[in-house]
Amino acid sequence: MAGTDSSIEIKLLPTPVVILCEPQLGENIGTAARAMANFGLWDLRLVRPRDGWPNEKAIATASRADHVISRVRVFETLEAAVEDLTLVYATTARLRGMQKDVIGPDEAAKRMVSHIGGGQKAGLLFGREKWGLLNEEVALADMIVTLPVEPAFASLNIAQAVLILAYEWRRQSGQADNLPFGSLLHDVAPRSELVGMFEHLEGVLDESGFFTSPEKRPTVIDNLRTALTRGNFSSQEIRTLRGVISSIDRRHQRPNPNRQKPLPKKDADSTD
Amino acid sequence: MAGTDSSIEIKLLPTPVVILCEPQLGENIGTAARAMANFGLWDLRLVRPRDGWPNEKAIATASRADHVISRVRVFETLEAAVEDLTLVYATTARLRGMQKDVIGPDEAAKRMVSHIGGGQKAGLLFGREKWGLLNEEVALADMIVTLPVEPAFASLNIAQAVLILAYEWRRQSGQADNLPFGSLLHDVAPRSELVGMFEHLEGVLDESGFFTSPEKRPTVIDNLRTALTRGNFSSQEIRTLRGVISSIDRRHQRPNPNRQKPLPKKDADSTD
Repeated sequence: MAGTDSSIEIKLLPTPVVILCEPQLGENIGTAARAMANFGLWDLRLVRPRDGWPNEKAIATASRADHVISRVRVFETLEAAVEDLTLVYATTARLRGMQKDVIGPDEAAKRMVSHIGGGQKAGLLFGREKWGLLNEEVALADMIVTLPVEPAFASLNIAQAVLILAYEWRRQSGQADNLPFGSLLHDVAPRSELVGMFEHLEGVLDESGFFTSPEKRPTVIDNLRTALTRGNFSSQEIRTLRGVISSIDRRHQRPNPNRQKPLPKKDADSTD
Repeated sequence: MAGTDSSIEIKLLPTPVVILCEPQLGENIGTAARAMANFGLWDLRLVRPRDGWPNEKAIATASRADHVISRVRVFETLEAAVEDLTLVYATTARLRGMQKDVIGPDEAAKRMVSHIGGGQKAGLLFGREKWGLLNEEVALADMIVTLPVEPAFASLNIAQAVLILAYEWRRQSGQADNLPFGSLLHDVAPRSELVGMFEHLEGVLDESGFFTSPEKRPTVIDNLRTALTRGNFSSQEIRTLRGVISSIDRRHQRPNPNRQKPLPKKDADSTD
């Protein structure tokens, strides 16, 4: 989905730190950076990235998340990468046999919102592509975060795990209600225009012999008005629809020279 | 994150259909299939995929989401791809200038849960990598869904957009509380074992002269007990900690032949 508005300045607000432990593929670092940027995260730390840093493939796949990529910090140990944090969650898809609480991404984000809102720093650990986090890394975390995946298909790419956590951060920090653009349904036509169209249509239908049974006429009109009201038409749409009605109404009076024979009469709208 | 339990059978429950319009890269089809599988979706439809179908790259990147890939259906038109659906949402990151409601992924998932729960079928449209959905495609949808991204960095990969919607489906359908594994914190030791450890520790501290000021002793003990209670120790952990206390306590009686000189005394825990 394209749609980035590059005229808007990126703000580096207090948000969770993302720490990737020994990431193997530059592509995953880049797509993780992009996922972070999508939901307003920017502090990315790498512990011993296999292919070093900077990494061309990471930069290419980050899709211009330059404000994240340019701030990446590399650490020799996880202990150094988390030294300024007071809340650390380890993401893992596997049961660890460790005495740690296990929470979902919504609960993790909720706790981080409150922690970071209180002026403290929080971080999320993500493991290697092949085998995730080591037990000694999980031991440094306060709790384990796991995603509510289908147990029969639980294998998630790192960038996708980052994306879900970043999205939940956005949601729990109350920013998910601010969609980047809103509905354009503000200019629904005043009811008088809608009624004008109804009366126009009903007059045309009266003349065309649509209402074959006069006692059913009020019910049929109610049903038609109900169906057409649901459309929430704008003034422009009502003008177009009235043009449509007039055009069909006039077609017997002003035959179209391009038409060779009359269109077959459709019975679906009849009241019989 | 690894962790798939391949012994669990995959159930094809009623879930939203995912429709990719003219996807260009096989990799994106594959990662979208994987994202669907992570959260229990399985019905993937392609409208005119650029490189045809089947696609080797899609299969490779789907990471064994075979139950999705093997069921992929290809259509010549979007109209054919949505013909059995009664609710269709178009995902887009751009303002369309169209008279359609715009909702977020949470609201979209909530409505799909109620729609599908009522025995009907719902689908999500995703556009091309380069320029998303065409206006004529969006016109076929009931509403527009957009993600609460950072407006200054709104460009999302297709598979990542699929992932967020699939995650929200999982969440709104009440399955997000079922994490694939739970906390192991059930075997917290009975309080008697904790008190046994406290008394052991306090006895050792009494003998070591830790409590330099007798009138402060009860307060210091309260604080120590409070700090150690927060750990929710298991019986095994309490046995380990009592071993630690005993070992430190005995070190002056049974000097370690490997140690050349006594360790420096740490003052941090003193009550002075």
